[in-house]
Amino acid sequence: MYRSHSCGEVRASHINTEVTLAGWVQKSRDKGFMVWVDLRDRYGITQLIFDEERTPKEMMEKVKSLGREFVIQITGTVIDRESKNDKMVTGDVEVLVSKLEILNASMTPPFTIEDKTDGGEDIRMKYRYLDIRRNPVKNSLIFRHKVAMEVRKYLSDQEFIEVETPYLIKSTPEGARDFVVPSRMNEGQFYALPQSPQTFKQLLMVGGMDKYFQIVKCFRDEDLRADRQPEFTQIDCEMAFVEQEDILNVFEGLTRHLLKEVNNVEVDKFPRMLYDDAMRIYGNDKPDIRFGMEFGELNEVAQHKDFGVFNSAELVVGIAVPGGNAYTRKEIDKLIDWVRRPQVGALGMVYCRVNEDGTFKSSVDKFYDQEDLAKWAEKTDAKAGDLICILSGVTNKVRAQLSALRMELAARLGLRDPKVFAPLWVIDFPLLELDEETGHYHAMHHPFTSPKPGQLEMLDTDPGAVKANAYDLVLNGNEIGGGSIRIHDKKMQATMLRHLGFSDEDARAQFGFLMDAFEYGAPPHGGLAFGLDRLVAILGGQETIRDFIAFPKNNSGRDVMIDAPAFIDDDQLKELSLKLDIKS
Amino acid sequence: MYRSHSCGEVRASHINTEVTLAGWVQKSRDKGFMVWVDLRDRYGITQLIFDEERTPKEMMEKVKSLGREFVIQITGTVIDRESKNDKMVTGDVEVLVSKLEILNASMTPPFTIEDKTDGGEDIRMKYRYLDIRRNPVKNSLIFRHKVAMEVRKYLSDQEFIEVETPYLIKSTPEGARDFVVPSRMNEGQFYALPQSPQTFKQLLMVGGMDKYFQIVKCFRDEDLRADRQPEFTQIDCEMAFVEQEDILNVFEGLTRHLLKEVNNVEVDKFPRMLYDDAMRIYGNDKPDIRFGMEFGELNEVAQHKDFGVFNSAELVVGIAVPGGNAYTRKEIDKLIDWVRRPQVGALGMVYCRVNEDGTFKSSVDKFYDQEDLAKWAEKTDAKAGDLICILSGVTNKVRAQLSALRMELAARLGLRDPKVFAPLWVIDFPLLELDEETGHYHAMHHPFTSPKPGQLEMLDTDPGAVKANAYDLVLNGNEIGGGSIRIHDKKMQATMLRHLGFSDEDARAQFGFLMDAFEYGAPPHGGLAFGLDRLVAILGGQETIRDFIAFPKNNSGRDVMIDAPAFIDDDQLKELSLKLDIKS
Repeated sequence: MYRSHSCGEVRASHINTEVTLAGWVQKSRDKGFMVWVDLRDRYGITQLIFDEERTPKEMMEKVKSLGREFVIQITGTVIDRESKNDKMVTGDVEVLVSKLEILNASMTPPFTIEDKTDGGEDIRMKYRYLDIRRNPVKNSLIFRHKVAMEVRKYLSDQEFIEVETPYLIKSTPEGARDFVVPSRMNEGQFYALPQSPQTFKQLLMVGGMDKYFQIVKCFRDEDLRADRQPEFTQIDCEMAFVEQEDILNVFEGLTRHLLKEVNNVEVDKFPRMLYDDAMRIYGNDKPDIRFGMEFGELNEVAQHKDFGVFNSAELVVGIAVPGGNAYTRKEIDKLIDWVRRPQVGALGMVYCRVNEDGTFKSSVDKFYDQEDLAKWAEKTDAKAGDLICILSGVTNKVRAQLSALRMELAARLGLRDPKVFAPLWVIDFPLLELDEETGHYHAMHHPFTSPKPGQLEMLDTDPGAVKANAYDLVLNGNEIGGGSIRIHDKKMQATMLRHLGFSDEDARAQFGFLMDAFEYGAPPHGGLAFGLDRLVAILGGQETIRDFIAFPKNNSGRDVMIDAPAFIDDDQLKELSLKLDIKS
Repeated sequence: MYRSHSCGEVRASHINTEVTLAGWVQKSRDKGFMVWVDLRDRYGITQLIFDEERTPKEMMEKVKSLGREFVIQITGTVIDRESKNDKMVTGDVEVLVSKLEILNASMTPPFTIEDKTDGGEDIRMKYRYLDIRRNPVKNSLIFRHKVAMEVRKYLSDQEFIEVETPYLIKSTPEGARDFVVPSRMNEGQFYALPQSPQTFKQLLMVGGMDKYFQIVKCFRDEDLRADRQPEFTQIDCEMAFVEQEDILNVFEGLTRHLLKEVNNVEVDKFPRMLYDDAMRIYGNDKPDIRFGMEFGELNEVAQHKDFGVFNSAELVVGIAVPGGNAYTRKEIDKLIDWVRRPQVGALGMVYCRVNEDGTFKSSVDKFYDQEDLAKWAEKTDAKAGDLICILSGVTNKVRAQLSALRMELAARLGLRDPKVFAPLWVIDFPLLELDEETGHYHAMHHPFTSPKPGQLEMLDTDPGAVKANAYDLVLNGNEIGGGSIRIHDKKMQATMLRHLGFSDEDARAQFGFLMDAFEYGAPPHGGLAFGLDRLVAILGGQETIRDFIAFPKNNSGRDVMIDAPAFIDDDQLKELSLKLDIKS
């Protein structure tokens, strides 16, 4: 036993009790005749006191030798503290130390172990074990644990069974790139790491497991964007004998449970929005509905005059920025620069001020009179004092651009409060998505998603218009979950794969086991998966996921702490019947 | 909603209620004018009834067309059953069907979906989704879920935090072979899949996480023995500021909790046994103590006569087989054949009957008189009616042989009752183990295990004698968990690695990050890991782990259902800068 109490536990009720504590030296204040040490462990900080009067000389010297992050064990008596600190739960007391042992020394850490550290991202990643000592990271990991436990409790109470599916599976060409694992025992062959347990959870439904879930690592060998990781965690779920409605209800229940238990927030029934509406109203399939600023489509009221830019555009669309009329000309010019950045990609922006007296002043007054502009205000729901921002161009692009502007302005206006939670189901996603580079359609969700009843035939005539039994759960502008009702009929699955460009042979080689399974009594089924990393970050009120991952990788997929990946021995390669074939 | 109730839910209290059920046709009995169908789902079976009087003709034809494992949905009225079946919880009622829909047809399954199936191992693995419909497999998976949930609840209630550690880590030459994962973004470099999260959990302790656990997949590319899997699941745990005693107490508590919650069995405080004693008394570091048959060492009482075999042996050791005197000469000869099989490897076996009248009759009466044999009986604790079996030879080998014999005989005698649970801590394992082929010592547990205090110096003089702060939890003759107090001092870790044959350069390259971490305030720490697959199998009263794994691999590491591993595209190899180098 290294301790009788934790450093977060000592209270006034312990006064005159002897305690043994162990932990790290957070800091010490040396007044010569008196030394105070803040001793820290996972649970909190307790102040230790040493003074010339009551502390043996030898110990006094020892305590003065302690540096930050030394690991010590002390025994002492809890005493009343002279200058109380009501910011600390242990702030009423201190421990007068009678025994001090140094369990381990520490070099000076490369950054301060404080809530606000002086360490940059890179150094913190290299010394992640020190970063984890800091409250923001430590508490994020504890928070993640709490969320995961609540997920398991909730689903388990609803008779869901957590089943572990295999990590060493088979590579499929569909979707993102697989990480592969050479097999030594099967020469020249490879396993793949799962991008998701999709086919296995469907087979569990065929196997009668009925309600499955798993909190599981998934892997994608994609070029990493800022906030992506090659390995990530899903809450993966599947149910048999269900329709979309059943699934939405169960997982709305789970999400509401989490918000209540973890955030102490009660939310109403989640609104539902058609994918087409989300795109039209927010330019985005994962709209942030914590605030309005809905799109107003202006083709009707802006394409009848001589303004060529608008007349030649597929879509003219605007939003009203609350109070935006207060922006100076310079500020608006900056906004125009912002939408013209390559990341957004607009060619320009038309604006229209709505003055307090109800008159309008636009950047295109040459073409539009007050009556025209009043219609713009009506369509964008602009009030006196607002600024209408209008973009135009090809529908898909201009929607994405205006959505980016909407999010940016909302952030500047403080409308994206991380303490406010606005969940939303987006439903009726398209089944297929056109890859503009190749001209081919691929599955928007995945090849196992079922089309809406009666729409299968449209695959031949108007593939882009076919809607799927697919849905996303959106929280504060982030997709936190998504799923679909699956195909459970062999013929329909074969038709779908053919439409996705699989030859019958390829379909058989890749998904034969699944289609075979469909011939032995496959029940109707569907499910969804949550991205746990993102979910905990949002529930935790954070934008980035890294603090919620104990040992994240950097943008090159490297773990800079352990320095992985790394070269391996020639012997290892030989055993795997592999040779390096370095291009550079 | 495909159903109002599950098939396991319908009771007498539902009589006259309309219910909608969905599930699989377990079987149907067609009496011409009447048809009964057993409808099955995960939760149970409900009997459906159709008859000429009350069922429309069209539906009567439809129900007669149903084959086994068809998926159907029915609506009907719960009625009292004429011939009650008290073996079924739903046996008091049946459902008179008014609506029948075939949701999916089924081909005839390749084996019967019954508790006792006619399907062999291979076909069951290929159609694992059908195997999972069978109660023995389905219930094993549900049982596994229950165990995992109880583990999480217990540890979480004790303030342990489940932290996910990475799966894409770095290959280390120590221990078993790693599975490796080529990195596309870091040309020519590889990740490795973890054999255990060992170094990460230690870093979490350095990071102040204090109490960590994780139920986590681990990977070993070993030639597979019958009951091994290339991927397996651990309950991985670590604690800071603890001594061995603390860890034994916590995880004894966990194990006792599982036995209580899952098996409804209360067990006393777990006995503890020194490794040396376990080897001496049971010839095994994971003794099954559900029964006695302890070893009696006979050197003293058997090496003073002219029997050369014994005189030249390092160890002469015997066990008393309860009631074994009843064996015929032929049966004993068979036993001798058994110990001479290559799997056991004894050269022969001496035996001694203990007659009911207290006299002895041995196979070596030429050399030993009654007085000698009485001493054998005393040493092996043999009673009248027993048979003493004696092996001799090199200590390590003869112990292993006699241990195998002891286990075999206990099984034959019914002494290995899967409903009886006899946990045991084996402590004070040796730090190092001699590899007889290479003559080198390697870490018995792993290179991070600390030696007993004051024994570090013996590494130079008598490495094999150094004991470690290492312990195993043994249940019914199986090692279900093992762990150690770790080294937390950089110098000691470096010394240890040097003794294990690492050059300073290799030690730095492989474990530099850990040794660096030890310089920034590493607390004393230790932990252990349970093998979850084995643990649930034993708690579930089974010998083999396969039924407790949803999708196991075969002895060649193949998933025969999905046919993995498999060859991958040349393009994929090229992207990874790899070439196949097939030897055969």
